[in-house]
Amino acid sequence: MSVGTLILLRHGESTWNAENLFTGWVDVPLSEKGEKEARRGGQLLRDAGVLPEILHTSLMRRAIMTANLALDAADRHWIPVKRDWRLNERHYGALQGKNKKQTLEEFGEEQFMLWRRSYDTPPPPIEPGSEYSQDTDPRYADLGPDLPLTECLLDVVKRMIPYWESSIVPDLRTGKTVLVAAHGNSLRALVKHLDGISDEAIAGLNIPTGIPLRYDLDEDLKPIKPGGQYLDPDAAKDAIAAVANQGR
Amino acid sequence: MSVGTLILLRHGESTWNAENLFTGWVDVPLSEKGEKEARRGGQLLRDAGVLPEILHTSLMRRAIMTANLALDAADRHWIPVKRDWRLNERHYGALQGKNKKQTLEEFGEEQFMLWRRSYDTPPPPIEPGSEYSQDTDPRYADLGPDLPLTECLLDVVKRMIPYWESSIVPDLRTGKTVLVAAHGNSLRALVKHLDGISDEAIAGLNIPTGIPLRYDLDEDLKPIKPGGQYLDPDAAKDAIAAVANQGR
Repeated sequence: MSVGTLILLRHGESTWNAENLFTGWVDVPLSEKGEKEARRGGQLLRDAGVLPEILHTSLMRRAIMTANLALDAADRHWIPVKRDWRLNERHYGALQGKNKKQTLEEFGEEQFMLWRRSYDTPPPPIEPGSEYSQDTDPRYADLGPDLPLTECLLDVVKRMIPYWESSIVPDLRTGKTVLVAAHGNSLRALVKHLDGISDEAIAGLNIPTGIPLRYDLDEDLKPIKPGGQYLDPDAAKDAIAAVANQGR
Repeated sequence: MSVGTLILLRHGESTWNAENLFTGWVDVPLSEKGEKEARRGGQLLRDAGVLPEILHTSLMRRAIMTANLALDAADRHWIPVKRDWRLNERHYGALQGKNKKQTLEEFGEEQFMLWRRSYDTPPPPIEPGSEYSQDTDPRYADLGPDLPLTECLLDVVKRMIPYWESSIVPDLRTGKTVLVAAHGNSLRALVKHLDGISDEAIAGLNIPTGIPLRYDLDEDLKPIKPGGQYLDPDAAKDAIAAVANQGR
C-alpha cells in the first residue's frame, strides 16, 4: 500500500497572538479571527477533496479548537483523534506572558532575535510556581522531570521527531490521510525533518496560520514536492510575510 | 483500584430538536441554545470538581460538539477521545426528517407513541439512497450489513452494551472518570442496563439535554445510588417534564 497524505495545519490566531504576547505553553483560546481561520481551513480541505482520516493534535486549546472547527467545516468531525504533548508549541520559558514589542525594546534586536530564531539557544527558564508555569497542570503530570521549563527549536525537534516516528508514520504507512493540527514551532520542527532543512536555514521558515499544508510522501517518507503545497498558495504567501514582521 | 466515576451527557438542543423533526442518524448541528447548554454542562462539571479523564462519543456532530464545548468550559479539552457508532442515537428509519407534530396528526396517538416509546417495535425502515439515509456516508462504510435502516430501543441496547463492556468498562476499571457524550436513546439504553430497568418501565424514562448525570459504581458496576445524580437536579427535573411533552 502506498504511503498516505500528510496535512499540516497551524492553529488560527489566538487571543495572545492578537495582543502580541509570547505564548508558548500558556493555554490561551482562539480569537474570533482565529475561529474564522480554522473554519476556512476546513473549507479548503473540503473544497480540495482532501479528507483527513485521523487527527493528531497537541494538548493545547488553540490547536484542538482549530482542529475541531476545521473538521466540522470539512464534515470530518467524526474521525479518530490522538493527542500528545510532543506536538505542543515551543516552551518559551521566562518570556511566556511578556509582550513581544516591549521585550524587543528592553533587550534589543540581537537578543530578541536570538530568543525567537536561534536553533539551539533557549530563553531563560520559567520560574516553577510562577503565573505562566505549567508545573501544576494535570495534563502534564505524567511528564515528571521531562516537563520543559524552556525550549529552543532543537529541543522541540528532539521531542517531536520521536512522536512522528512512533505515532504519525504508522498511520501514514496504513495509507491514511493524516491531519496534524499543531503550532508554529512544532510544525517547523517537522518540516525541518521532512525537507532536510539546515539548522541555519530553518530560522527563515515561517508557517502561516489556518492554511492546510499538504505533503505527498514517497515510500521513504520524503516529500515528493519539497516544501509541500499550501491549499491556498496566495494567502500563504501573504501570511508568511506578515509572520516575519511580528514584534515590529 | 476502585472503579472510576461515570458521567453521562446528552447533547444540547440541535437545530432539528428546535424544529421538532425526527432526527435519528441525520447529522444535524447544535442550535445556539444547544451550544449554550453544552458550555453550561462543562461549567457544572468544573464547579462540581468532576473532571473527566477520558471521553467516549458517538460519530455524530451534536454529541461531538457538545463534548468539545463542555470539555473546553471545564478546561479538560485535552483528554483522550474515543468515538464509536455504537453510541449513536437510535436510527429512526423512514421517520427521519419528518415533523413530529405532523406525524402525530397523520398516524394518530397510538402509532406515534408506539414508534417513539415501544421497546421492540421499530419504525418502518428508511429507503436506501433516500435523502436522509446513511448508506453512502463514509463514516459508516466499515459497517457493511450491520448498518441499521431502522431501530427500536432494543436494537440500541443490543449494539450499545457490547461497546459498554468492551470499551467503557475497561476505562472505569483503571479508576478513570469517564465522560460519555451521546444521545437520548443510547443513554437510555445504558441507564436501562445500569439500573436494571424493565422493558416496560424504560418507556417512562427521559434524560434531559446538557445536564451531566453522575454514576458512582461499585465493583460489580452497579450504581451505588440507583438513577445516579444530576449535577443540577432542579434543572433536570424541569427538563425531564419538558421532554415528555415533545410532539404535543
